[in-house]
Amino acid sequence: MTTQPPGPDVPDRLLHTMLRVVDLERSVAFYRDALGMRELRREDYPDGQFTLVFLGYGDEADNSAIELTYNYGGTNYTHGSGFGHVAVAVADIRAACERLSEMGVTIIRGPGPMMHKPTNGKRDFIAFIEDPDGYRIELISA
Amino acid sequence: MTTQPPGPDVPDRLLHTMLRVVDLERSVAFYRDALGMRELRREDYPDGQFTLVFLGYGDEADNSAIELTYNYGGTNYTHGSGFGHVAVAVADIRAACERLSEMGVTIIRGPGPMMHKPTNGKRDFIAFIEDPDGYRIELISA
Repeated sequence: MTTQPPGPDVPDRLLHTMLRVVDLERSVAFYRDALGMRELRREDYPDGQFTLVFLGYGDEADNSAIELTYNYGGTNYTHGSGFGHVAVAVADIRAACERLSEMGVTIIRGPGPMMHKPTNGKRDFIAFIEDPDGYRIELISA
Repeated sequence: MTTQPPGPDVPDRLLHTMLRVVDLERSVAFYRDALGMRELRREDYPDGQFTLVFLGYGDEADNSAIELTYNYGGTNYTHGSGFGHVAVAVADIRAACERLSEMGVTIIRGPGPMMHKPTNGKRDFIAFIEDPDGYRIELISA
């Protein structure tokens, strides 16, 4: 198989990653205040009993976003072993983890270089934190 | 709480969404040939017994990507109920689903408007397909 030439039947942009959350305002506050995202769009679907909130670092026309889905009266969701994490860039990971820790955010893995080195390329400087529903967020040195 | 002012301790860019896959080449072929992404970066970590492949629609400096993690001898992964999907934009969803169907891709939910209408905003025209590991991909009319 070869790379698809662009055409109207071939996707051409990554729009968002969707995560289901139990407490919408708690999650919006986390992505906004802890991760520095802006709330870009909020849509309520009373007929479907759910609300969607899109957050990110820039307009959806040019940037991928996070979509939070809140199902009315949402119960807890399970974490499978397949989905890994969402990664964000931050200039100063140590300072970011200090700030997040003071906010009460769970730091799963403190700032440091990746444990292993790739055969090509550099060893990233990273940290892992947890969002309010336990989704993992990777911080990577910009 | 208020929106974080930008600073070196506040993240400022969405980098990627990471998914673990069982058969790396099968998944790379899917994201490339079915979804039209380019392979942007591949890093092998023999010491850690894993390989990472980054795919997307543009350079990682300006665009979010998908990170596929292949653990050597990878077993099957489970899908929890929390992670929802990754969404991509496509101009002609009906044509895209025809093309994908002919390629043998599983169409979970054929092209059509969203079942429910938001109280504000329009009803998106969407479809859902499955990647080789069963992760859901939403197609949204661009």
